[in-house]
Amino acid sequence: MPSYHPPLRDMHFVMHELFNVTDELKMIPRHADIDTDTINAVLEEGGKFAAEVIFPLNVSGDAQGCALDKATHEVAAPDGFKAAYAQYVEGGWPSLSCDPEFGGQGLPLVLNQCMYEMMNSANQAWTMYPGLSHGAYEALHAHGTPEQKALYLPKLTSGEWTGTMCLTEPHCGTDLGLLRSKAEPQPDGSYRITGQKIFISAGEHDLAANIVHLVLARLPDAPSGSKGISLFVVPKFNVNADGSLGERNPIFCTGLEHKMGIHGNATAQLNLDGAVGTMVGHANKGLAAMFVMMNAARLGVGNQSLGLTEVAYQNAAAYAKDRIQMRALSGPKAPDKPADPIIVHPDVRKMLLTARAYAEGGRALAIHIAMLIEKELYSDDHEERKACADEVALLTPIVKAFLTDNGWIATTHCQQVFGGHGYIKEWGMEQFVRDARINMIYEGTNTVQALDLLGRKVLGDNGAKLKKFGKKIAAFIEEEGVDEAMQEFVNPLADLGDKVTKLTTELGMKAFGNADEVGAAAVDYLRVCGHLVFAYLFARMAKIALQKQGSGDPFYTAKLHTARFYFAKLLPETAGLIRTARSGLAPLMAMDEAMF
Amino acid sequence: MPSYHPPLRDMHFVMHELFNVTDELKMIPRHADIDTDTINAVLEEGGKFAAEVIFPLNVSGDAQGCALDKATHEVAAPDGFKAAYAQYVEGGWPSLSCDPEFGGQGLPLVLNQCMYEMMNSANQAWTMYPGLSHGAYEALHAHGTPEQKALYLPKLTSGEWTGTMCLTEPHCGTDLGLLRSKAEPQPDGSYRITGQKIFISAGEHDLAANIVHLVLARLPDAPSGSKGISLFVVPKFNVNADGSLGERNPIFCTGLEHKMGIHGNATAQLNLDGAVGTMVGHANKGLAAMFVMMNAARLGVGNQSLGLTEVAYQNAAAYAKDRIQMRALSGPKAPDKPADPIIVHPDVRKMLLTARAYAEGGRALAIHIAMLIEKELYSDDHEERKACADEVALLTPIVKAFLTDNGWIATTHCQQVFGGHGYIKEWGMEQFVRDARINMIYEGTNTVQALDLLGRKVLGDNGAKLKKFGKKIAAFIEEEGVDEAMQEFVNPLADLGDKVTKLTTELGMKAFGNADEVGAAAVDYLRVCGHLVFAYLFARMAKIALQKQGSGDPFYTAKLHTARFYFAKLLPETAGLIRTARSGLAPLMAMDEAMF
Repeated sequence: MPSYHPPLRDMHFVMHELFNVTDELKMIPRHADIDTDTINAVLEEGGKFAAEVIFPLNVSGDAQGCALDKATHEVAAPDGFKAAYAQYVEGGWPSLSCDPEFGGQGLPLVLNQCMYEMMNSANQAWTMYPGLSHGAYEALHAHGTPEQKALYLPKLTSGEWTGTMCLTEPHCGTDLGLLRSKAEPQPDGSYRITGQKIFISAGEHDLAANIVHLVLARLPDAPSGSKGISLFVVPKFNVNADGSLGERNPIFCTGLEHKMGIHGNATAQLNLDGAVGTMVGHANKGLAAMFVMMNAARLGVGNQSLGLTEVAYQNAAAYAKDRIQMRALSGPKAPDKPADPIIVHPDVRKMLLTARAYAEGGRALAIHIAMLIEKELYSDDHEERKACADEVALLTPIVKAFLTDNGWIATTHCQQVFGGHGYIKEWGMEQFVRDARINMIYEGTNTVQALDLLGRKVLGDNGAKLKKFGKKIAAFIEEEGVDEAMQEFVNPLADLGDKVTKLTTELGMKAFGNADEVGAAAVDYLRVCGHLVFAYLFARMAKIALQKQGSGDPFYTAKLHTARFYFAKLLPETAGLIRTARSGLAPLMAMDEAMF
Repeated sequence: MPSYHPPLRDMHFVMHELFNVTDELKMIPRHADIDTDTINAVLEEGGKFAAEVIFPLNVSGDAQGCALDKATHEVAAPDGFKAAYAQYVEGGWPSLSCDPEFGGQGLPLVLNQCMYEMMNSANQAWTMYPGLSHGAYEALHAHGTPEQKALYLPKLTSGEWTGTMCLTEPHCGTDLGLLRSKAEPQPDGSYRITGQKIFISAGEHDLAANIVHLVLARLPDAPSGSKGISLFVVPKFNVNADGSLGERNPIFCTGLEHKMGIHGNATAQLNLDGAVGTMVGHANKGLAAMFVMMNAARLGVGNQSLGLTEVAYQNAAAYAKDRIQMRALSGPKAPDKPADPIIVHPDVRKMLLTARAYAEGGRALAIHIAMLIEKELYSDDHEERKACADEVALLTPIVKAFLTDNGWIATTHCQQVFGGHGYIKEWGMEQFVRDARINMIYEGTNTVQALDLLGRKVLGDNGAKLKKFGKKIAAFIEEEGVDEAMQEFVNPLADLGDKVTKLTTELGMKAFGNADEVGAAAVDYLRVCGHLVFAYLFARMAKIALQKQGSGDPFYTAKLHTARFYFAKLLPETAGLIRTARSGLAPLMAMDEAMF
């Protein structure tokens, strides 16, 4: 059975040493009283919840899965999930970073980020139940009417109710413009919604008294395509004005998907047969309202793979120190044993360090974004809010796609460290791989993320957002360029920055000639940008590690080695990616469709 | 549900147009009478068996898995497997390329290669039952005593009995030197073998009347380590001198592994409690004898991923032509439909073409090796036998590791083409991914393959085998270098050839200083060499396609486009790999073990 230890030391490093979050937070009015001890104490408790309550349910939840009672349309989550959720609610965890106006604790988002990383390490399938709820909370908080907020936010904040996002239909996933679910206006101002939704994560279950579905549908007179979609809140049980539960709303689970992984989360087919809903935001502007939730969800998905990368790494590292097999090529390292622990083999270390570097880089990026969002939402400086929003917009597709592709690579490597035992369910490693796979697909496939980055976020504003981010990197390079010890990090970072600038210009020119050039290069381009971000973050982390490595704390030496590994063994992937990005559209489009 | 169509056209191209196998085979005495019609007719029938008999059992076999009766130690394969196997035996397929002396048809190995590719596409788990048998056949054919051959080979040839290879024990997989199973000599010249084996593929099942286990164990006086291992043939039922079945031998299945994939194949824990066996080959030389089987198995594993790559590609291509979603960035391509088929999107094509190129390159390589082995075994020219043996030795780790890593990439890409539907069992795509995963692990992990390539096959003879292979490439480059139309293929091939030469020299020097440098670079090095081989094969295929593209057969145009895609989008990966290979050992070993 696998094990999990919350990586609190590295979280402290990133929060307090790399980003100085306490001081940064204090400058935001609503966090004027925050202190480091509070942050650390909350995380320590959160880590215990993740490791002690939901991690033990991960393997069993995968083996058991969810069960639909076709007669009642009720779904039972795996054994133990409901009790764990009750404990989660009891502990006040759902309300951590929620608005105090609706019963939230109003703590910084960075705490939620780290809490979710740990919960994703411990049990991604379980964590999706509160995760989707939090997305519904955010969408309603941003776009709900005062009545909707009063009715739903307190219960979503407390965790008494959970939420979902109902977008996909059998014939449309990426292309929501094709969706067909209908919303008929009623005399009382409500709507009756009819249609079929599929792939609804946490779509039906027995963890909470009510489920708040956010549903995309079309009004009768709606224009076709994506400009005719509205958003509705459709509770499983209608909610009376006093907040008590009313009648069962006809939004029924008609089937559960049998999936490669995340078996513990109910992926529901939902049939809406005149289900009562109220509109969220404006008519035909539902996609915009839903994007609040989707952007949060995209970051959340990146965070899922960060969690899996970390837990897979921990288990593979432990196994590699314990399992003895063969001698080092350079001669025995454990001559007292019949063979050496496999961690002596350079390629085993390469697989481990790949996962480690992807976890540490991903954590730094995710915490950085959490701080940006905090400022975007709550800074009292308008300019800062705008600047942070831009950077969040730029980095969101990178977090989603780069971290989930990395998670796939990392969990696969960590499984490989176990040899044949990695393929066997009992060790738990193959589950990490299966669970990680969905993260590259849902909430916008990684191709969609890449198109969003290159087409919309970069070329869409002629590179303005990218240039702003580039200026941060340039400033760092200029400052550190004089430090001899930092050359090994600053030089390749500067080199890659120049290459990204050149590549972006070239792709912009090509796209001007043929928009499909964006699609041909986008996936490679996103990965190059992901490495640029990681190189910047690892260089900054290396700087601190260099300053403190004399302290006697081996953490800093290890951080420095991880950074060096990253620059030597992972960053060079960009050399091939830049070439393929530059090789353009023609090799992809030449083949006639009939010949595929 | 997925579909499968045997890729006969491409097999014909590779066999008859690229490698001219009929003429090549005619020069080998035992195939003097072979003709192209026979080859094609056999493959057509074989394709029917794969597509019509075992492919329909692939999804159901995965869902059902194997069942152990703990009371009787008997294992039931999934429904339909036994009947399909009976049909396989009835059709004479097991004997295809076996020795006529023992009832085989003596047909060329290349037919067996193509037959197995198709069976692996159709049902890898099922195909492992005959696949392991064929490995046991080969080991006994090469190393068995006349009595063992007479007793076992006719039944393995006919398929009445199946075989296994019993190597792994709980504490040793890669490091067979640690194995503990004991073989006690008996007065009658037989041995009583006691020990525990795990991960035994096709280790127990109900398809055949008897199972011929090849078991590694130690004699009482054996030296420790890998030089004290002997090989024994241990039948499930003892075999009387007349070939009839005798008593049940105490080699019992005590458990089946629960695995990520290949659920239809029984992965058995086998307990030997004084099981009767006879020695194969010489005392303490068991590993050498087993390596006959293991080398065949390594090629077979590469072939498994080739099969999965092909079938995943076919299904993803069909889906991409059928599924409509979004418009092309350059404007509608199917304006009569509500959206364009997703094959218009460049990145969807990139994922498809990646799988296609890996399938076509892998097929060419696998068929090339099958012809080399044919000549290694049966040519009447000693020099040719030796030269072919050397090339087989060089290419075997590349086939195993490069094709299985490619299969992982390809099946993952093809799953991605399906979006969310790729994650759902009903479409069958996620099974291809789960099944493909084991191929990177068993029969020597891909790291072990890389060490074999760089450490043993390349540096072990100071690059002699590699240089011989390089000379073939150089001759091709010289011949085609004058052809203007071939420049786009020959130039990057020549460039990569030069880089491999330089890299090999550099790594050889480093390894001289520290043997662990081999381990640090080997995995990247193997992948670079894999691309060199593929670039050579694609250049040769492109040459033919260029010559014949005026024929009006779109096959040649498609082949040319696939070759161009390969050079533009896949080969450039080598740029990053060469950098990481060169970056050496230090970044991997710097971190103290305790800090992992």
